[in-house]
Amino acid sequence: MDKKLNLTMLTDFYELTMANGYFEAGMTDDIAYFDMFYRRVPDGGGYAIMAGLEQLIDYLKNLKFTDEDIEYLRSKEFFCEEFLEYLRNFEFKCDVWAVPEGTPVFPHEPLIVVRGPVMQAQFIETMILLTINHQSLIATKANRIVRAAKGRAVMEFGTRRAHGADAAIYGARAAYIGGCAGTACAIADRDQGIKALGTMAHSWVQMFPDEYTAFKKYAEIYPTNCTLLVDTYNVLKSGVPAAIKVFQEVKPENMGIRIDSGDVTYLTKKARKMLDEAGLQDCKIVVSNSLDEYIIRDVILEGACIDSFGVGERLITAKSEPVFGGVYKLAALETNGELIPKIKISENVEKITNPGFKELYRLYDKDTGKALGDVLCIAGEKIDENEPYEIFDPNAVWKRTTLTNFEVRDLHVPIFREGKCVYESPSIEEIKEYCKQQVETLWDETLRLENPQTYYVDLSENLWDMKHALLKGRPWK
Amino acid sequence: MDKKLNLTMLTDFYELTMANGYFEAGMTDDIAYFDMFYRRVPDGGGYAIMAGLEQLIDYLKNLKFTDEDIEYLRSKEFFCEEFLEYLRNFEFKCDVWAVPEGTPVFPHEPLIVVRGPVMQAQFIETMILLTINHQSLIATKANRIVRAAKGRAVMEFGTRRAHGADAAIYGARAAYIGGCAGTACAIADRDQGIKALGTMAHSWVQMFPDEYTAFKKYAEIYPTNCTLLVDTYNVLKSGVPAAIKVFQEVKPENMGIRIDSGDVTYLTKKARKMLDEAGLQDCKIVVSNSLDEYIIRDVILEGACIDSFGVGERLITAKSEPVFGGVYKLAALETNGELIPKIKISENVEKITNPGFKELYRLYDKDTGKALGDVLCIAGEKIDENEPYEIFDPNAVWKRTTLTNFEVRDLHVPIFREGKCVYESPSIEEIKEYCKQQVETLWDETLRLENPQTYYVDLSENLWDMKHALLKGRPWK
Repeated sequence: MDKKLNLTMLTDFYELTMANGYFEAGMTDDIAYFDMFYRRVPDGGGYAIMAGLEQLIDYLKNLKFTDEDIEYLRSKEFFCEEFLEYLRNFEFKCDVWAVPEGTPVFPHEPLIVVRGPVMQAQFIETMILLTINHQSLIATKANRIVRAAKGRAVMEFGTRRAHGADAAIYGARAAYIGGCAGTACAIADRDQGIKALGTMAHSWVQMFPDEYTAFKKYAEIYPTNCTLLVDTYNVLKSGVPAAIKVFQEVKPENMGIRIDSGDVTYLTKKARKMLDEAGLQDCKIVVSNSLDEYIIRDVILEGACIDSFGVGERLITAKSEPVFGGVYKLAALETNGELIPKIKISENVEKITNPGFKELYRLYDKDTGKALGDVLCIAGEKIDENEPYEIFDPNAVWKRTTLTNFEVRDLHVPIFREGKCVYESPSIEEIKEYCKQQVETLWDETLRLENPQTYYVDLSENLWDMKHALLKGRPWK
Repeated sequence: MDKKLNLTMLTDFYELTMANGYFEAGMTDDIAYFDMFYRRVPDGGGYAIMAGLEQLIDYLKNLKFTDEDIEYLRSKEFFCEEFLEYLRNFEFKCDVWAVPEGTPVFPHEPLIVVRGPVMQAQFIETMILLTINHQSLIATKANRIVRAAKGRAVMEFGTRRAHGADAAIYGARAAYIGGCAGTACAIADRDQGIKALGTMAHSWVQMFPDEYTAFKKYAEIYPTNCTLLVDTYNVLKSGVPAAIKVFQEVKPENMGIRIDSGDVTYLTKKARKMLDEAGLQDCKIVVSNSLDEYIIRDVILEGACIDSFGVGERLITAKSEPVFGGVYKLAALETNGELIPKIKISENVEKITNPGFKELYRLYDKDTGKALGDVLCIAGEKIDENEPYEIFDPNAVWKRTTLTNFEVRDLHVPIFREGKCVYESPSIEEIKEYCKQQVETLWDETLRLENPQTYYVDLSENLWDMKHALLKGRPWK
């Protein structure tokens, strides 16, 4: 990452009051386990795409309280001097596991697991949530939009409507992971390697006496890659005819027109016909203008003639549902070397947590390669690929299926061991390709935009027993 | 600003292709005028709050293309060497005017006006939009929420659901301008001077054998400021009784309970009664849990006993409408020293721009101090406070009113003159106070959350004539 700013203090203030509290209570080194997970797929979709891990790793690698931070904390008159001294010498000691970026993930699955001194494991909550929530939100939305486009390229065009610089830059990154072909954001290209493209605004056209002159000048300057914005005055009466004239005169290597207003289906059909009749079958048609997965699906069904889409504000803000509700919950404690699972009970059944230190397995059918379901187990439990394995619905335990002929994959990858990073992030191209390939392991029923089939995330028999013992208030040995 | 990262390249790629195009077309120094304005108030509200100017100024002051930027641009094989050399020696030369932060602003009003060499004035579009769109969105949403709370404090609690680090930090800043009392975000406190607060998460309570022990420990460590989270197990059966016991034993200076789940009205009424009966009338009740202006309005109407609100994801993402649709449009050109107004005509009447280099005046009633309306004029036009002034509806020109006894304020403040910053941003406290005072100049009808009365933004007779001449295709002399 290029960004050298120390974000250690980008934390909820309560992480600091709790940390000082644990310190003063003599609990500094008590070992705790936390899970980061989400409860609901945005937009009622069937899955989310994990993203943001690389930036989280950067944050954790660079955790450091500067003199300025210590001074600031001292000025709050909340914290004891010994605690501030501890922070000055802070060394990250936690173990961290995570699901790799680009993986389709489901509600209640631990995406990040942290084990370490409670002060530290608690302190990093805010940035774990901020980073993973943001990028998973955008990667998930992008994946929906890209699938709706059915193979046509989708460009991320939302920089100007992003919620600040990071939302633009890492939003472009997450959109790329989710399947976008590129971005309009130059800095995301320079720093993240996400191909940026862009040609002209309406103001370019307005700067010249007429559309033809504006297009001609542009085509002469950019003869290898020339996409002309044809809707400044009137798409069919002036924009497309002027573009055709210029294309025939200049003969650019790659030609395109972009339409940014009006009815996409009507205009692209008419424009396609005009271009084809002028012998410009190679000229691409790009559309932009408040697009999202629903509009893209509909205009394609209506036969709109579109080669690629530019998607702005509705992607970069995930406008239809701009919150990815990841949470971070205590799962276990170590007391005298013994693991004590913890559960958060709630009136709302959805909010009851899965206790304990857990592993997350995904089972794939050996013949089709399709994902059969996920199983959450108590850490240390293995699933033997050579034996039939019975899974059951944790909310309707009589629903049981026995799986055979499957492969098992452990979705939790070690990221930090005792504070040292042991993971190297794949390249952005690798993450994007992996995401594409993993989404293909899901059934179409799960990929549906609305009312998808629920993918199974089951608990192992052992974990189910543990959870229900704790729910009944019994200790788990 | 503390952030030293050079964001010059945080720009849409088309700003660069257009800049190189103007360069190659020999138009580098053509003088252009651009307006940044928005078309619709989010959430159907009656006004927006201008914010983000300080960060925009930082960006403009630090515009600089590094060797790394030049190298990157060269690698794209789009740009001529002379242009890259121009960028290497780039010096910002534009004039910039802006409406001060914290001002209530209305659709179609130029919030930022830029005059300068077209290459430069065009180039800065992306960051003008990004910065002002983001912070105005959040300041506007915060102002709605704060007004709904009717004097009760509203804390910004959304860091973990923000769209990246900047969205958290500058979102906290914008929320403060809009009227929030503080934030949960420590770095926003350290760097922006926005008071941060926070006490404990559910995990603190879970780390101890029982709620009483957790609360007692906390109160002993923080006897001056002790807000206890009472909904980890059961608010009324265990949380509030345990808090009461601890308060009676430790007697903290400032006491509070926080409720983060369940029905806010029911629980706060019951909790208030329990606290009062225990003689703890001074104990404050704080609520949080997916709040927004509508829920806050309703629970207050229902008689909920709440002293302050913590508002998270629905504020920091402006969830109900997460896009502030600011745009940046060419308004005029200078040719041989003559000003040529430019208009963007569209099928959609809402999208037709107001042409020319303009001033924006707000008229206040001298007796009541209330804002009477805004008038957009051609630059240089004055409104004489000592003469009656006739305003008219630009879309229904027969609707006319003559104003007397008013004060006129020019809302456009010079920010840069020929590239030099001539403006010093007020402190965040001053901006917040100014915002509060300016919102009070609006009538209740305009402040209404839904279906507000439209505030008048009129055109001067001259500007109206200019616009209609251009609409008819006639030149304007």
